[in-house]
Amino acid sequence: MLSYDEAYNIIRNNFSFLKTEIIEVGLLNSLNHILAEDIIADINMPPFDNSSMDGYAVMFNPEIMQWNLIGEIPAGANSKVSINDNSTVEIMTGARLPAGADTIIPLEDVAVEKNLIKLKDGAKISKGQYVRRTGEDLKLNSIAVHKYTMLRPKNISLAAACGASKVKVFSPFKMGILATGDELVDINEKPENDSIRASNNYSLFTAIKDINMLPVDFGFVNDKPEFINEKLKSALGTNLDILITTGGVSVGKYDYLRNILEEVGAKIIFWKVNIKPGKPLLFCVYEKKEKSILIFGLPGNPVSALVGFNLFIKRNIFDYFNIKQDDTFRAVLSEDLHKDDSRRHLVWAFAKYEKEKGTYSVRKSGRQSSGNMAGMSNANCLLIFEEEKDTLHKGEMVQCIRL
Amino acid sequence: MLSYDEAYNIIRNNFSFLKTEIIEVGLLNSLNHILAEDIIADINMPPFDNSSMDGYAVMFNPEIMQWNLIGEIPAGANSKVSINDNSTVEIMTGARLPAGADTIIPLEDVAVEKNLIKLKDGAKISKGQYVRRTGEDLKLNSIAVHKYTMLRPKNISLAAACGASKVKVFSPFKMGILATGDELVDINEKPENDSIRASNNYSLFTAIKDINMLPVDFGFVNDKPEFINEKLKSALGTNLDILITTGGVSVGKYDYLRNILEEVGAKIIFWKVNIKPGKPLLFCVYEKKEKSILIFGLPGNPVSALVGFNLFIKRNIFDYFNIKQDDTFRAVLSEDLHKDDSRRHLVWAFAKYEKEKGTYSVRKSGRQSSGNMAGMSNANCLLIFEEEKDTLHKGEMVQCIRL
Repeated sequence: MLSYDEAYNIIRNNFSFLKTEIIEVGLLNSLNHILAEDIIADINMPPFDNSSMDGYAVMFNPEIMQWNLIGEIPAGANSKVSINDNSTVEIMTGARLPAGADTIIPLEDVAVEKNLIKLKDGAKISKGQYVRRTGEDLKLNSIAVHKYTMLRPKNISLAAACGASKVKVFSPFKMGILATGDELVDINEKPENDSIRASNNYSLFTAIKDINMLPVDFGFVNDKPEFINEKLKSALGTNLDILITTGGVSVGKYDYLRNILEEVGAKIIFWKVNIKPGKPLLFCVYEKKEKSILIFGLPGNPVSALVGFNLFIKRNIFDYFNIKQDDTFRAVLSEDLHKDDSRRHLVWAFAKYEKEKGTYSVRKSGRQSSGNMAGMSNANCLLIFEEEKDTLHKGEMVQCIRL
Repeated sequence: MLSYDEAYNIIRNNFSFLKTEIIEVGLLNSLNHILAEDIIADINMPPFDNSSMDGYAVMFNPEIMQWNLIGEIPAGANSKVSINDNSTVEIMTGARLPAGADTIIPLEDVAVEKNLIKLKDGAKISKGQYVRRTGEDLKLNSIAVHKYTMLRPKNISLAAACGASKVKVFSPFKMGILATGDELVDINEKPENDSIRASNNYSLFTAIKDINMLPVDFGFVNDKPEFINEKLKSALGTNLDILITTGGVSVGKYDYLRNILEEVGAKIIFWKVNIKPGKPLLFCVYEKKEKSILIFGLPGNPVSALVGFNLFIKRNIFDYFNIKQDDTFRAVLSEDLHKDDSRRHLVWAFAKYEKEKGTYSVRKSGRQSSGNMAGMSNANCLLIFEEEKDTLHKGEMVQCIRL
């Protein structure tokens, strides 16, 4: 059986079949989109030598401790005033330095006597202080925000300062969701007898929205081969990039999905990964002239389905777009954990920041049955319990993935 | 001057003036909304004793190693079959246990000879194995998802399983943005002479969207008291919960904002906090019959404005809704840092997870001028440099806020 790493890498290689499109969006609508161009600085930042304080602009001279006040420069004023080493102007934060000035003295360091500005006793000046130099943060024509940046407010701030009121971003992947299972009923129904509500459509739809991709809900279908066949064909006939199915991939007799996917022309790349939960992951590629569709057959139970989405789909999409993921952290385990197989376990867990120690502690979140949606709902991370280990000890540092 | 903690607490106390409204949204649109009700389990989870494996259901008896196969139960089938200690049925993952059964033997642990199921040599059975008991994850009528949960896919999964196709959530705060400053020009214009582009409207608009609140952009206005007065009155006349202004709060002559806010009837709560950047934060309350508006006067430079938003506004909104923030972490400092004042510095920094060591390292992101938007754009956290310290040493553990 494939290890987690092997499965991950195979999927990553197959992501190269996907084609990206580029769209243009207004900067106010660009949050969390992935930039498909470099944003270039069309100005120097700062655009001119300017003051970083409210104060007085002077020409530095270590011998001179007082100046004649000859004017003032508010921010935004296009002042033509110039000074010599005996004169000064009052200057506001952000205002351009007057000709001749190279140094700013903060308001609080001077005493003002009519038009005479005197340095206070004990106040020191160093040449060039509180001056922001032209282009020192970003030079004209250099790259301000790099291609493949996921645009956050801090980047949007800089893009706005560069005049990028519209930006080119990658079109989000269109990601279909199709749940399968005889036991499924609509969530508006009260499940009777042996049925359960079709919750995967909801968790996956919102998980796709959460990474700013485009979910397309194909609903759910019962375990009748002809129904599944028809639904799959119709989903694969659309312009999806990725199709996620749930259910129908374990070894039970009624788990038809693999065969039907082959019938409709999908190429099975692998089935099963040495992890828990989520072992019966099925991965296929459906090749079309225009573009191929990657198919992920996730297990039907909601816990395994969401683990599979997080581990294999979400992370690979981030990798595909070169987005650095900052979701891994170490935590001190609060209890012993055991397992008796050589699978990699992903343990739904709850990490807590211990302010005084400056570290995270982590404990598992309830019983680790693949049906325990309550435990999953209360978790805030997945704890990684590696293949080769059978015990993780209380006090040990373990690796976790933030959710 | 107020310390960071003092200022924070004063703001937190004043958040009690805000009134929340409750709205109902469809579950598919509930992502990142804050739940305003407990979601109650209207069923047991699991709803019946069921199998957690594909396998054979038996009545546990340590003496018996083989069974007659008398049927099969797919998931979702409402089977009426029952067994005794010599008989078994094939059962699929998730299917209800037949009457009499208490234990599941996985497929791989048996050999099948026609209708005889034999336990393989070496395979062991323990009573109750691979059975999920009725209600063991969540009992009927207990709380499935608690009020004040920010709904994530893992919670939405559980809500769907409880049939909550619509949920009550808190209406997002309506948050106005008004930039002030004579130097500001529209971002579509090329700034000439001493002007700069009005980028704060863009960074704050998207920062508000990022926390799923409702931004209302009032644009920017030049430093003419009568213009600012008029704009403020019109903004405060709407049904905003929070108004954020930028600019006009430092000690410069042209920083009118404080006086004008008093003129229009706002109550100044405090001005200036002992931090850098962002010192001249102005905080006011505008009391109205229907509801009050909290007013945050952030500094005009884009770096200080975004620090102020993150430290005082975003964190207080999360606190208000009882949302636990998981954005603080410790990292090993990669370089010495110095400061020569007793303010709390927030250093734009870049933290990197050192996979082999299992810890984060952190270094500052460029020059810490309050105008360095490029340094801010490249940062991924704010490093906290406490009031009382003048040096942070290379190798020291420092506290950071993830962005």
